[in-house]
Amino acid sequence: MNYEQLFEQIKLKKSFLCTGLDSDYEKLPKHLLLQESPVFEFNKQIIDATAEYSVAYKPNLAFYESLGVKGWQALEKTVDYIRGNYANIFIIADAKRGDIGNTSKLYAKAFFENMNFDAVTVAPYMGEDSVTPFLSYNSKWVILLALTSNKGADDFQYFKENDTLLFEKVLKKSQEWANKERMMYVVGATRAEMLQDIRRIIPEHFLLVPGVGAQGGSLQEVAKFGMNDKCGLLVNSSRAIIFADNTENFAIVAKQKAKEVQTEMEILLKQKGII
Amino acid sequence: MNYEQLFEQIKLKKSFLCTGLDSDYEKLPKHLLLQESPVFEFNKQIIDATAEYSVAYKPNLAFYESLGVKGWQALEKTVDYIRGNYANIFIIADAKRGDIGNTSKLYAKAFFENMNFDAVTVAPYMGEDSVTPFLSYNSKWVILLALTSNKGADDFQYFKENDTLLFEKVLKKSQEWANKERMMYVVGATRAEMLQDIRRIIPEHFLLVPGVGAQGGSLQEVAKFGMNDKCGLLVNSSRAIIFADNTENFAIVAKQKAKEVQTEMEILLKQKGII
Repeated sequence: MNYEQLFEQIKLKKSFLCTGLDSDYEKLPKHLLLQESPVFEFNKQIIDATAEYSVAYKPNLAFYESLGVKGWQALEKTVDYIRGNYANIFIIADAKRGDIGNTSKLYAKAFFENMNFDAVTVAPYMGEDSVTPFLSYNSKWVILLALTSNKGADDFQYFKENDTLLFEKVLKKSQEWANKERMMYVVGATRAEMLQDIRRIIPEHFLLVPGVGAQGGSLQEVAKFGMNDKCGLLVNSSRAIIFADNTENFAIVAKQKAKEVQTEMEILLKQKGII
Repeated sequence: MNYEQLFEQIKLKKSFLCTGLDSDYEKLPKHLLLQESPVFEFNKQIIDATAEYSVAYKPNLAFYESLGVKGWQALEKTVDYIRGNYANIFIIADAKRGDIGNTSKLYAKAFFENMNFDAVTVAPYMGEDSVTPFLSYNSKWVILLALTSNKGADDFQYFKENDTLLFEKVLKKSQEWANKERMMYVVGATRAEMLQDIRRIIPEHFLLVPGVGAQGGSLQEVAKFGMNDKCGLLVNSSRAIIFADNTENFAIVAKQKAKEVQTEMEILLKQKGII
């Protein structure tokens, strides 16, 4: 999916919601545990309930890898299920990978060839040749970690050379590798006050924004400081939607929660004059 | 395996070789492709041939993930095979993971509970809470990326605040999270000239050193600048050993190559007065 197609979906669904499929086995509704693949069954019902309001889905790989082979199978089935049942959904492998060139190339193969993801999150520490192998696929994206939502972001991401912070250096340097059509950045909602500065460096790029909801970030603030005239935002919510309820009603409640977020997003998109 | 036990193995085997199981499917000897699990069969024969000379094995996850479920199965079988057949081998998941706290915890579960790895390589960009979940297991290790062997290391790892480079900041800051008994650092052999400075910051820690062999680093230089009185080095070689030959003789040739490296290491250990 390319930049314009993603923007079209945002206008069509009046939403820039990315639903995070952080499908922690320990938190699944108990009645699903009898299924052959509880995680896949959970995802399937969540997707059916929320696809109307979500432009993107983002499974975090840790929740699948921690289940070994069964987890990997559930992940593959989830991507296939979205592709088979819903058109024009942007699917992100939240993998935070990154390795030397010939190795990153194989991670790219895993996510873009074997599985039909649109994007992979990549950690920038190892630099250009750890990132560019993910850019050799048409219409596939790198989402580079810039300023993350966790407490540990303070340890290194604000490291400062002259007047440039490390995450700003990541934003600047990586523009040599790909433009807004192929690269996005992770910027945590808990750092909304930094979005103004970030938009000075990358006015047009999409940002993937985690941390709204369970982690305490504000959607209003993110839109105020981060939205551009092509929206330029994918705001992720995981736990606050998918684990809002853990009874047999979980999908109905997830649908309500996703709709609530979408409604708020629709207002923000109208205020900006996008729809 | 703890610090002293690892040092004992180094003295016993007169080697600080880590054999990298970067078992690229495309490069496997053709006669193995008829096996049910060609990657596992390859690893099994490589391990049998080289265990005498290797204190550690390091599968890089990308080579397994790129094969999907079959790759994951081959990885699990490889770890089980080493544990079942060889005592006191240090096994490293070269995964370069790192995510927010509750997510890193699940990666830790994947590698330390589901599979019996001794250590995981972790990317430092997200800071403390992305690293510490890996430290909650007894006798398990984090190997933190510090100064990597690839060209892209120049992009961010030499970023400088006052007189401190980013990789030095990583070395310093991370000492607040764990000591030499639980943390090692990745320092590329292609950066051997930096090892003197690094040893000033972390005189006692083990370093995992990739980049000798195919990437051009020198074992002599690494030992000269990086070895301490407990050796303090695990030097990795992957392609130069495991893909030295791709005929039916591959394991015999791998054994010769591993023995050559071990012989060189034995001389270096003697020069240092360790054995």
